[in-house]
Amino acid sequence: MSGTRLGILGLGLIGGSLALALKGKRGAPEVWGCDKNREHLRMALRDGTIARACTEAGIASCGLVVVCVPVVRSVGLLRRIGKRMAPGAVLTDAGSVKSEIVREAQAAAGPGVEFVGGHPIAGTENSGFPAASPSLFKGKTVILTPTGGNTGEAIRRVERIWKMAGARVLRMDPGVHDHVFAYVSHLPHAVAYALVHSVATLDSKVPLGYSAGGFRDFTRIASSNPEMWKDIMLQNRGEVLRALRHYRKNLALLESLVRRKDAGGLLAYFGKAKRTRDGL
Amino acid sequence: MSGTRLGILGLGLIGGSLALALKGKRGAPEVWGCDKNREHLRMALRDGTIARACTEAGIASCGLVVVCVPVVRSVGLLRRIGKRMAPGAVLTDAGSVKSEIVREAQAAAGPGVEFVGGHPIAGTENSGFPAASPSLFKGKTVILTPTGGNTGEAIRRVERIWKMAGARVLRMDPGVHDHVFAYVSHLPHAVAYALVHSVATLDSKVPLGYSAGGFRDFTRIASSNPEMWKDIMLQNRGEVLRALRHYRKNLALLESLVRRKDAGGLLAYFGKAKRTRDGL
Repeated sequence: MSGTRLGILGLGLIGGSLALALKGKRGAPEVWGCDKNREHLRMALRDGTIARACTEAGIASCGLVVVCVPVVRSVGLLRRIGKRMAPGAVLTDAGSVKSEIVREAQAAAGPGVEFVGGHPIAGTENSGFPAASPSLFKGKTVILTPTGGNTGEAIRRVERIWKMAGARVLRMDPGVHDHVFAYVSHLPHAVAYALVHSVATLDSKVPLGYSAGGFRDFTRIASSNPEMWKDIMLQNRGEVLRALRHYRKNLALLESLVRRKDAGGLLAYFGKAKRTRDGL
Repeated sequence: MSGTRLGILGLGLIGGSLALALKGKRGAPEVWGCDKNREHLRMALRDGTIARACTEAGIASCGLVVVCVPVVRSVGLLRRIGKRMAPGAVLTDAGSVKSEIVREAQAAAGPGVEFVGGHPIAGTENSGFPAASPSLFKGKTVILTPTGGNTGEAIRRVERIWKMAGARVLRMDPGVHDHVFAYVSHLPHAVAYALVHSVATLDSKVPLGYSAGGFRDFTRIASSNPEMWKDIMLQNRGEVLRALRHYRKNLALLESLVRRKDAGGLLAYFGKAKRTRDGL
């Protein structure tokens, strides 16, 4: 293996943007890419975004590998790649849910190979290499979820790549990560999807165009990729169900305040939410 | 009374912006203003936004009056003003809930005085005359909710003012209006407030800053004025409770799909929401 070579498996929005961000940067590693979409792979090679288009075996020969494929495919891929990598190599990913992936990938990694979970908080509503951009991670946060089994050296190697791409890096326990994201990302998506369903299944024809600002902006996240969100909800199922249960209680409280015409209670409820929100 | 004079009661964000939008427009009526905030009234008079600062009695002497005060104060004010207006005069408002206001204001209006409900779909997170802008209504929609008791002439007089301010005007039955807005505005606010509460009451300290885009944008509407939203929820209580009940069912369906690990069901649920949202 080459200790300095970076392999990117999956040159979609995330993997493609990472490769583009490193292109021409001083001290950047040589980047090898792999993608099942041959046309995108050719595009990345032609414009010099990657130095070589290779197979899974080629990727496994790199000293640092970032797997950037949809969550549902990543567990299997991480297991296969991790087994083939050489001692001293480091494997990481870019999935939105971490506990299961970290457990599986660390268990499957070959001797001397370290897996460090990663989650770049960046993205757009588009996907694929044509949507990739060298500035996607600029000023964004990448969360790494190392465990006690990781060495400081392995974590720093992953950190270095994301920092070079313009992101700041935070470390978080994988379980804490999944708990936090159940609340700040997965629950909001669930809530928005259910909201759009409520309007869609209305008996009377509601002229949605009238809502212009509010409803449209609010439900924008319900336009996210259904396939990806199906996988996220299932991979983080336990935390998502707990967050939904908690949310239901807060909604029921609001509903009972409206039912009981409790003006003081409503004012306190909305006031507390406003203070919390304004403090973000 | 003067048939062409326009009285604006409440020179806050909505009333102030209406006065500013009409200022200097060809064919615009003379505008008299009334506001309990004397400093704002003086500001409006000094810069020529209104021709005269007057009392409630002065407002009632105008041929067309727009009441732009918070919903909770408007029913009482509309009753008082409507009683004092001269035959042939037209009264309208700018409240976000219509059925109750239309019923009360039409019942209280003096002989020959018509009330036509209005709801400009415009606003910012700020309020008061200093936040007012001449372009607030430009390209926005104003919904009028006339009833069988209104003449075409009265409706057209109200329409003319809003069109002059740059808005397009739609007509809707007051009950339909409240049903539609329960779904596209009041329910989303309820849902966002409950979401912020879920995060705020978390046992573990959730670092909200991480959520950057999604959560922040999604919960922006939970920063709206608590006093105003308390009043809206209570004034449209019946429709809001029905919409909440409907929403709860859709959320419970999603929750059961996650609990049963129903991948196909989740894909269909998210896919349908995406198609609905993309069609807006």
